[in-house]
Amino acid sequence: MIYMDNAATSWPKPNIVYNTVSKTMKEHGANPGRSSHSMAVDAANILLYGREMLCQLFNVQDPFRMIFTLNTTDSLNLAIKGILKEGDHVITTSMEHNSVIRPLMHLMDLGIDTTIVYADSQGVIDPDDIEKSIRSNTRLIVTTHASNVTGTLMPIEAIGSIAKNYGIYYLLDAAQTAGYIPMNLSKLPVDMVAIPGHKGLLGPQGTGILYIKDSIDLNQIREGGTGSQSESIYQPRFLPDRYEAGTPNTPGIAGLGAGVAYILEKGQEKIMAHISNMENLFIKSLSQMEGVKIYGPHIMGLRTGIISINIWDRDSREMVNILNHDYNIATRGSLHCSPLAHDTTGTKKQGTIRLSPGIFTTLDDVKACIRAIGEISIKVKTRSI
Amino acid sequence: MIYMDNAATSWPKPNIVYNTVSKTMKEHGANPGRSSHSMAVDAANILLYGREMLCQLFNVQDPFRMIFTLNTTDSLNLAIKGILKEGDHVITTSMEHNSVIRPLMHLMDLGIDTTIVYADSQGVIDPDDIEKSIRSNTRLIVTTHASNVTGTLMPIEAIGSIAKNYGIYYLLDAAQTAGYIPMNLSKLPVDMVAIPGHKGLLGPQGTGILYIKDSIDLNQIREGGTGSQSESIYQPRFLPDRYEAGTPNTPGIAGLGAGVAYILEKGQEKIMAHISNMENLFIKSLSQMEGVKIYGPHIMGLRTGIISINIWDRDSREMVNILNHDYNIATRGSLHCSPLAHDTTGTKKQGTIRLSPGIFTTLDDVKACIRAIGEISIKVKTRSI
Repeated sequence: MIYMDNAATSWPKPNIVYNTVSKTMKEHGANPGRSSHSMAVDAANILLYGREMLCQLFNVQDPFRMIFTLNTTDSLNLAIKGILKEGDHVITTSMEHNSVIRPLMHLMDLGIDTTIVYADSQGVIDPDDIEKSIRSNTRLIVTTHASNVTGTLMPIEAIGSIAKNYGIYYLLDAAQTAGYIPMNLSKLPVDMVAIPGHKGLLGPQGTGILYIKDSIDLNQIREGGTGSQSESIYQPRFLPDRYEAGTPNTPGIAGLGAGVAYILEKGQEKIMAHISNMENLFIKSLSQMEGVKIYGPHIMGLRTGIISINIWDRDSREMVNILNHDYNIATRGSLHCSPLAHDTTGTKKQGTIRLSPGIFTTLDDVKACIRAIGEISIKVKTRSI
Repeated sequence: MIYMDNAATSWPKPNIVYNTVSKTMKEHGANPGRSSHSMAVDAANILLYGREMLCQLFNVQDPFRMIFTLNTTDSLNLAIKGILKEGDHVITTSMEHNSVIRPLMHLMDLGIDTTIVYADSQGVIDPDDIEKSIRSNTRLIVTTHASNVTGTLMPIEAIGSIAKNYGIYYLLDAAQTAGYIPMNLSKLPVDMVAIPGHKGLLGPQGTGILYIKDSIDLNQIREGGTGSQSESIYQPRFLPDRYEAGTPNTPGIAGLGAGVAYILEKGQEKIMAHISNMENLFIKSLSQMEGVKIYGPHIMGLRTGIISINIWDRDSREMVNILNHDYNIATRGSLHCSPLAHDTTGTKKQGTIRLSPGIFTTLDDVKACIRAIGEISIKVKTRSI
């Protein structure tokens, strides 16, 4: 099988990730931070190692500002609900995933207003439109780093500068970029970053991260046992415990640590170049193909390695099923949990065929995928499917 | 090593659990419910299998009422915050874990009042005290099934009947009983049950469950992508999607499914008898030992296999460290994230040494542990430690 669905979950993972998860369950299976026996201490060290690897990758000093969560959605809910209160105003974009839009729509009922800034049809956001939407009660700007539909990169430095100028918090959703695009969180003008463990960072599913800059006093959204301040019936205020109630996913975080260590060893620049080469090949070949429409910018540097296409006017789900059954190529069709991005790109009815290569995808895989799309396009044109 | 810390996390797991987690990551590593390609369908089936195994174990008809969460704390937060609103009153007990107490204390600030019913010094709750605490605005009763400090079983049938009579919801925290004590959720008078995946059910860490009876309309606490109703910017209302936003911990849930299948094959009664035998041996031997104090009831049937003790007046942490270093026995000391239970049992200063055998603990392990405690007790008495 050729797996072209890395934007959902990266697969395969490096062998070291599989092995680390197994070893952790078998040899370090205790509860981290709760007991003082040797295996519990080992488990606690595994969490710390994961945080330290993340700090190295994203150039962060304090490992305790890397908060482990269930997934990026959990991270985004924590950031959004932890910072906003009744009467606040938020600015976001039409290119956001439902992991941002749905919490914000829920908060509308609780007296927190949202302005959605629309991108152009290629998914490009004008930072001026963000600035124009600022009100006296604007407390938060939330944007994705790259659209999960079109791959369009957002002008995050410009948006971050605007946020800083107005004293507004900026929350970045790095679901599609962490691990693929180097990020220096000590320099980027962002206050919080939601990061998936199971996509570009090559960890297992069930792992997410929220990075919280040290100037932020975020309310927690879950209280419970932390193994710390056990004499107290109140949630501790210090990090990471404040935000990590309950038993963490230790084997998953162990695997995530191994995944990030693998990326550090391989080198971010090299990974980025490989993704970029595949993206380039996709764009170059598919843009010349009759009946194939590519969404998002065609220019390198304005986009990441997520390629959304359609074949003639055919339903994307049907095409994805043909790619799966006739070519053994795994892609994702229909809508991608980002309804407003489909409005923006005019694909709400047809959906899109999303091709998302990963770190282990080869140029040959990309070529096979391009050939398959070419064949399908001809078959559709000649009405043989 | 003799592992006597199963009340924190069960260890080891059956081999089938390790193997299933590995196989899932390697062979079914896609995102469940998001794409339509074969591997994504496999992943979705893994989640369904996990729910079906849980339904079989707990005698529940509808698998979609078994909600997957990060951990029991996450389940409890969902249940508590999803059902309560400003002006409501809650009743709980002094034997609760901080995963119940800390969310309730947090909600006090938001206008939700809590009454804490105190147990006697053995951790026994009188259901009459619960009934007497009911007010016109009481919306929820929350109790644990068994104390994580003393092992004391709560009178859940009596409490559930009271709740039913008054039209109050009853949330059960089954952190220490699920998998150890058979529960028929179609008959028990409970409305919601929070269940850990990584304790008695033998799954990996990072898995929790909330069972929600079909009469309950619970608000979600996280919104985000669900792979369903992707055209909508609002959280779906149907189960399980309403409560399961974001990518789930598929490998963990796969392991949990395998763990529950293992329990079903082994037989709950047989497991309960084994735990009961070990508990019996602990109570019988330790209650005759000079300088050893056992907390909680000494009578079988009033307690589960969690044994909290102290040795003379020595700090429990010190004793746990000796058990770890000199005897290679892993136990947990100090406070167990249940401050009020330590108030109730008078152990807030000393903490307790908690011995929690599991499914793979043998009677020989228990005997070795009893011998070690006997030796330590004599050494303390003769002041050689």
